[in-house]
Amino acid sequence: MSMETLKDLFEHELKDIYYAEKALVKALPKMAKGATSPKLREGIEEHLEQTKGQVERLEQVFELMGVAARGKKCEAMEGLIAEGASLLEEDADSDVMDAGIIAAAQKVEHYEIATYGTLCTWARQLGMEDAAELLGETLEEEKQTDLKLSELAESEINVAAETDDA
Amino acid sequence: MSMETLKDLFEHELKDIYYAEKALVKALPKMAKGATSPKLREGIEEHLEQTKGQVERLEQVFELMGVAARGKKCEAMEGLIAEGASLLEEDADSDVMDAGIIAAAQKVEHYEIATYGTLCTWARQLGMEDAAELLGETLEEEKQTDLKLSELAESEINVAAETDDA
Repeated sequence: MSMETLKDLFEHELKDIYYAEKALVKALPKMAKGATSPKLREGIEEHLEQTKGQVERLEQVFELMGVAARGKKCEAMEGLIAEGASLLEEDADSDVMDAGIIAAAQKVEHYEIATYGTLCTWARQLGMEDAAELLGETLEEEKQTDLKLSELAESEINVAAETDDA
Repeated sequence: MSMETLKDLFEHELKDIYYAEKALVKALPKMAKGATSPKLREGIEEHLEQTKGQVERLEQVFELMGVAARGKKCEAMEGLIAEGASLLEEDADSDVMDAGIIAAAQKVEHYEIATYGTLCTWARQLGMEDAAELLGETLEEEKQTDLKLSELAESEINVAAETDDA
């Protein structure tokens, strides 16, 4: 059996999110470049640095497990990134583009919230407290990023996107 | 310009989730069939019926906008479904498979939570209160489904998956 235990499944999921985070490190600069609002651009650049730290945390979890850090193609993140990339190719008003970038970024955050939530629960179930703590730190960062994006959208970007300033 | 206003972006996003929900109606029966826990299978079957209702709500939103209900390929949902399908092909212990199915389903739920959250906020910004209410009902259902999946995982499935009963 390729996945006989919860630990096997945990490792499978860890490889999936490791691939996903590394793909995101490559994709985020393009999203930042597509943003017009300085606050949004800075927010994405900040999250890029955070994402690099999250990759390192995953490497620590692999190390705690005594397993080589290796990614496994994550089709969901590929799809999320492809969707973001196709948005950036649209011919859109800059405020509308910003609103779309926030929406795409929040989908990515929610993918990660679901994944880290699951990994955290599995780590605790497996008695891997150190891993659970590391994964919990990242989970908290993703939730905060999602909240910040909502606030930015509701306080500024959506209003600007609705107003026809063309 | 193809997307000059927030309303254009809203319509774009609505077509994306309409495609995604219809794809999910086709994918959920396979996930239910792959589940061993009767509670999980019934939960997925129940959510399938709910999803059909969500498709109808989206059709009502299209109608409110005076726009024909048409989907637009959603690469993210395609990726999420492909990931679920590849899990079902794994050679896994049945409890471990159930834990994996829950993880895949929660990723789908979170994709929908992000999307409906965005659509709801945009609808309110656009003064489309009736649409916001319909989208808000679906958002609440997705959040409840996510919570139920967490509860089922933590109370039963993860424990069963950890215990080596092979």
